[in-house]
Amino acid sequence: MKRDIYDEDHEDFRASVRQWLERSVIPNTDKYIADKALPREFWLEAGANGFLGLSVPEEYDGAGAGDFRFNAVLEEELAKVGAAFPTCVGIHVDITAPYIVELGTEEQKRRWLPGICSGEILLAIGMTEPSGGSDLAALRTTAVRDGDEWVINGSKTFITNGYSADLVVVAARTDPEKGAKGITLFGVEATKEGFSRGRKLDKVGMEESDTAELFFENVRVTDAEVIGELDMGFIHMMQKLAQERLSCAVANVAHAKQILIETLQYAKDRKAFGQSIGNFQHNKFLLAELFTKIEVAESYIDKCVAAHAKGELSAVEAAKAKYWSSQTQSEVLDHCVQLHGGYGFMNEYRVARAWRDARVTKIWAGSNEIMKELIGRDLGL
Amino acid sequence: MKRDIYDEDHEDFRASVRQWLERSVIPNTDKYIADKALPREFWLEAGANGFLGLSVPEEYDGAGAGDFRFNAVLEEELAKVGAAFPTCVGIHVDITAPYIVELGTEEQKRRWLPGICSGEILLAIGMTEPSGGSDLAALRTTAVRDGDEWVINGSKTFITNGYSADLVVVAARTDPEKGAKGITLFGVEATKEGFSRGRKLDKVGMEESDTAELFFENVRVTDAEVIGELDMGFIHMMQKLAQERLSCAVANVAHAKQILIETLQYAKDRKAFGQSIGNFQHNKFLLAELFTKIEVAESYIDKCVAAHAKGELSAVEAAKAKYWSSQTQSEVLDHCVQLHGGYGFMNEYRVARAWRDARVTKIWAGSNEIMKELIGRDLGL
Amino acid sequence: MKRDIYDEDHEDFRASVRQWLERSVIPNTDKYIADKALPREFWLEAGANGFLGLSVPEEYDGAGAGDFRFNAVLEEELAKVGAAFPTCVGIHVDITAPYIVELGTEEQKRRWLPGICSGEILLAIGMTEPSGGSDLAALRTTAVRDGDEWVINGSKTFITNGYSADLVVVAARTDPEKGAKGITLFGVEATKEGFSRGRKLDKVGMEESDTAELFFENVRVTDAEVIGELDMGFIHMMQKLAQERLSCAVANVAHAKQILIETLQYAKDRKAFGQSIGNFQHNKFLLAELFTKIEVAESYIDKCVAAHAKGELSAVEAAKAKYWSSQTQSEVLDHCVQLHGGYGFMNEYRVARAWRDARVTKIWAGSNEIMKELIGRDLGL
Amino acid sequence: MKRDIYDEDHEDFRASVRQWLERSVIPNTDKYIADKALPREFWLEAGANGFLGLSVPEEYDGAGAGDFRFNAVLEEELAKVGAAFPTCVGIHVDITAPYIVELGTEEQKRRWLPGICSGEILLAIGMTEPSGGSDLAALRTTAVRDGDEWVINGSKTFITNGYSADLVVVAARTDPEKGAKGITLFGVEATKEGFSRGRKLDKVGMEESDTAELFFENVRVTDAEVIGELDMGFIHMMQKLAQERLSCAVANVAHAKQILIETLQYAKDRKAFGQSIGNFQHNKFLLAELFTKIEVAESYIDKCVAAHAKGELSAVEAAKAKYWSSQTQSEVLDHCVQLHGGYGFMNEYRVARAWRDARVTKIWAGSNEIMKELIGRDLGL
Repeated sequence: MKRDIYDEDHEDFRASVRQWLERSVIPNTDKYIADKALPREFWLEAGANGFLGLSVPEEYDGAGAGDFRFNAVLEEELAKVGAAFPTCVGIHVDITAPYIVELGTEEQKRRWLPGICSGEILLAIGMTEPSGGSDLAALRTTAVRDGDEWVINGSKTFITNGYSADLVVVAARTDPEKGAKGITLFGVEATKEGFSRGRKLDKVGMEESDTAELFFENVRVTDAEVIGELDMGFIHMMQKLAQERLSCAVANVAHAKQILIETLQYAKDRKAFGQSIGNFQHNKFLLAELFTKIEVAESYIDKCVAAHAKGELSAVEAAKAKYWSSQTQSEVLDHCVQLHGGYGFMNEYRVARAWRDARVTKIWAGSNEIMKELIGRDLGL
Repeated sequence: MKRDIYDEDHEDFRASVRQWLERSVIPNTDKYIADKALPREFWLEAGANGFLGLSVPEEYDGAGAGDFRFNAVLEEELAKVGAAFPTCVGIHVDITAPYIVELGTEEQKRRWLPGICSGEILLAIGMTEPSGGSDLAALRTTAVRDGDEWVINGSKTFITNGYSADLVVVAARTDPEKGAKGITLFGVEATKEGFSRGRKLDKVGMEESDTAELFFENVRVTDAEVIGELDMGFIHMMQKLAQERLSCAVANVAHAKQILIETLQYAKDRKAFGQSIGNFQHNKFLLAELFTKIEVAESYIDKCVAAHAKGELSAVEAAKAKYWSSQTQSEVLDHCVQLHGGYGFMNEYRVARAWRDARVTKIWAGSNEIMKELIGRDLGL
Repeated sequence: MKRDIYDEDHEDFRASVRQWLERSVIPNTDKYIADKALPREFWLEAGANGFLGLSVPEEYDGAGAGDFRFNAVLEEELAKVGAAFPTCVGIHVDITAPYIVELGTEEQKRRWLPGICSGEILLAIGMTEPSGGSDLAALRTTAVRDGDEWVINGSKTFITNGYSADLVVVAARTDPEKGAKGITLFGVEATKEGFSRGRKLDKVGMEESDTAELFFENVRVTDAEVIGELDMGFIHMMQKLAQERLSCAVANVAHAKQILIETLQYAKDRKAFGQSIGNFQHNKFLLAELFTKIEVAESYIDKCVAAHAKGELSAVEAAKAKYWSSQTQSEVLDHCVQLHGGYGFMNEYRVARAWRDARVTKIWAGSNEIMKELIGRDLGL
Repeated sequence: MKRDIYDEDHEDFRASVRQWLERSVIPNTDKYIADKALPREFWLEAGANGFLGLSVPEEYDGAGAGDFRFNAVLEEELAKVGAAFPTCVGIHVDITAPYIVELGTEEQKRRWLPGICSGEILLAIGMTEPSGGSDLAALRTTAVRDGDEWVINGSKTFITNGYSADLVVVAARTDPEKGAKGITLFGVEATKEGFSRGRKLDKVGMEESDTAELFFENVRVTDAEVIGELDMGFIHMMQKLAQERLSCAVANVAHAKQILIETLQYAKDRKAFGQSIGNFQHNKFLLAELFTKIEVAESYIDKCVAAHAKGELSAVEAAKAKYWSSQTQSEVLDHCVQLHGGYGFMNEYRVARAWRDARVTKIWAGSNEIMKELIGRDLGL
């Protein structure tokens, strides 16, 4: 029973991604971890290969694929290398670029999209604030009108790609009275005066990704940097969240599946008490459960990817995909660590890092509790 | 995101099944429970509607559908009425009839298939023995050659439809030396001398289905009643188990989903502490989890059904479907009971019976432990 | 590491309970199940043995034990026979009798306690109502003053011992304006005009216990039947709930432990694939987990029993005991069923009935959700 | 309901431990993490306070407490500071020192115990080997007789305190033919020629503890360094494992409980969607579950500690304590991380480090799978 959502074009694309990863990325992963960031060459190479503009129209140097399944293939292959890769790339390709493509003015597209496609303009998205977590409607960053300009003040935290981003899509409150209906999105270039970043955050995992706090102190932008409609930022974000969550879900399952496959091999190779540890019935049954769990999750995510490629995925289905995949990922990886015994606690083993990396996927992109809230509401509760 | 495996023909068929159930079956379910059996009219009506011969060629009065998705639709609609229905019908249509259709001689087909299609010949399959449980290779029922005949001795237990079946496909040992390779299948008509049945077993649930122990005391059959090849019964059974397990899996998920939908409604209607109990965050999140779990499971089972309809489902994938679906069913229904409070413990509530019914699905058709053993072997363990 | 809360006196008492059970109760359990009730002889014999008045002072014919550990021993031994026994007896001895002993007037004590001790006056407690479930403060049964009398109207449901009780302690609203502070307890004798009972409820399990709906239609009582203080019924009930919940907890663990011990024996005796099924590593590890789980739970319940015997158990600790023990019981018994294979689904097997019986313990005596609410509040949430 | 195993003496001792920790240890924890080790002053101060010789007789400068409850108090207070502290100290005090105290010759006691008590001789125990994990009987390190000496060759891994230990109790094979019965323990001083250590292992957590691989290349020792009886090392280790496992169990529960208490406070302080996040029913119920789980586990561990103090704890009960406590610890801490949202993924938060630290407790001191094997055997399986 093969996966049925990808055709030959997608598999060709997968091969080209894989080739690049094996040649240029996999040999350097230790360095990325030590640096707590992906280097600019990573982005430039990805851009040169055409991976960064998957959903950008060809006229702005993009691939104009218009088929999310290519994005999914990219995420999957990156996830097999490590959980941080689809995160960083996903923020750029799947999550932030669409704001410019779908909501941007012609001027904005010309100004930013070519660099986004080439890797010269690295993207981040500034939603979460220190005080607010998943409660987006409560955000405190403000953009106050001053003549022809907007003056932004506030801070954002847990920003993936935040330390190295060139352009940040920032959500700021433009109307203090209107709650969720008074938020606007701005494209803030990192060169702006008043924009600064904290140190790279010291995270439990996902060390290859740089994550930072961003500070806005009287950062001045103009209407040319307003993305989408005034006061409609919250709505714009909600509309994009389905793709963000699906992108996460694809990576979660692909990552866990890859580590599980490697763990199976380890369980066959590692001997104890005179046999392969995988042959102990407890471990055999456990691995049977984990493979079933992963394949069941994959079937759901695949169905979501196919639906999204046709424009038929709802926000709630994406929430289910994100919740279920991250839960599955954590459960599977915890058992994978256990199957490695003491080596599972050593950072030089991939499984150890994978376990740490994965812990955040139940928290970010809207915590799983938020997902359940959304699903519950959709049930009429 | 719609389910994508069924087309208009399947949905028309679903409507016709549904119509029959609403008219003739649902009004009588209490009676079936009291009788601990489905009456003959149930079978004759199902036959008259063309539901019993889905995979029987038209020349033997069947529907000749040749598309397992019709079977799946039938199982789903029956499961919505109660878990015992797809069980009894599945044993007849999905599990036992195929032995005659695919392995039977021309003479056997003419002799039995028309009655199977009309509901006049009710089927059961005699695999499990009191001593053996899921260990089919250890079976003790013997068929010893005596002149032109075979003399069958032994007993079978937990036989669904066993109390009322007219024809039982019986696995018996024809070569005591050859273990799994010395087993042959026989079609034993219930009118045979020496064949008898125990009482209807008093089960925890699935009360509408009659389950019985079967006894064979010098039952004499001839080569005309050998089904498939001599000594190949174990292999024949193994080949049929994929469809059996998938049939169970389809019913498990459809049943749990239906009860969950009804439980959601109950949680909206029932008030406590001044609000609908479904609006308490704990229950809201719980229902969100359960719906996600069911829909994820359904996506996998659907994928299996689609694959099986194309002849591409492996035995191990069917084992995964059976294991996962039954586990999901039990977990979901246990929470559904809890959401009903004290009423969930009252047999007059569907959820109470559903919970009891479902307990067996982790055990039968190969216990989930056997499923994990099979999956583990397939992983090379 | 022995259990350390019982001394020789308790163990002597245990032996006497055990002797009675083996002689008079265990041989009749099938009959009780068929009758859906414990017969009066059961109660009279228990009374004659001194088991029913454990906490009743000697001057009213009780044992005057004043040490809850005797109650716990009684519950444990009853639970080993079947989950319904400690329920019915617990309602009488641990839950309802204390209302008379601790809140009753001298006249009430003389009127009722001797019969309670002898088994001639069987007790039930009428809290739960059809509309209310665990929401005691919302109760709708009313007691309206009419001259020197109170006129009770309303109904109660899920009443253990309800079908055969002689005296019911009934909570009724005496002040419609004051919510939880307008509820009073009344001792209503079953001979009162206007008192009637519904049929024995058809429950998922606990079949030996009779459970019924009770109806009060202009039942007239006097101040002599008011138990405790006027309008203080809710407070009285809250104060008694700790002992009720602990009583349940003791039974939950003792019951599950007994069935687990029997299941271990079954797993040793039952052979499949050429060995005892308990020797398969999966089952061996599972049984190791289940025994650990039970012993851990038992250590907590024992600690609670010892504390309660010294008057130091808080309501919240009792809530923890009730929640944890019932959850443990259900989890353990579900696995015990699975270890029995198909036989676990047959009602003639104790494990099958135990599994059904135990389902209610997560629901009654305040559902586990209510327990978590109480525990959460105690945490300051 | 107070914990009932400690009396005033233990609580006085607790206060003195606590005082030291607050004054000298807590202010330096960041430094220890950065150094990946506890400094020698930590040990010397602990020694000066009398904490290191709890079970060493007074004549060798120990406290001669002879009551494991003091050890338990020490472990608990250390665990509240961080999971690595009870580990490092436990290896010294609870696990390795007893080999000298209980098996050592008079000469060995005079040679080593005073330094062990003062902190000048830091202990480690060398059991685990790279090839063997929990399979102690398969160890490959050899000690071959050469004249009056033994020549040790081999390596040990995952050795807590390994990088800084002054004296290592090493298990080596002295009879290649006799399996588990051909293993002897040796006291190997770190100054010995041929003894060397690998780098500090880069672990997922427990960063304050130094863990290293140890290498033995023709290390020569004499009979004066044989600890206990020749060829009896495996038996000696088995006898000591109960205390080792109980020591771990005490730390596991105390650590998780402390972090849970801090998480409760966080859940009260942190606001989202207009209220404390702990007041959301989902979180409230979750915290109720987690506190119940911890207190239930604590009651079992306390019972084990009390039993061990009286010499009545069996190896299997210690295995249950170790398995259950580590499982509980991991489950609780995973939820604590989730309750912290994104901050739970930041290493500067204690909960993040605690979650990482705790991952190893299901693996070490005999993996939980080994525990289940032992428990299963004790059940007769």
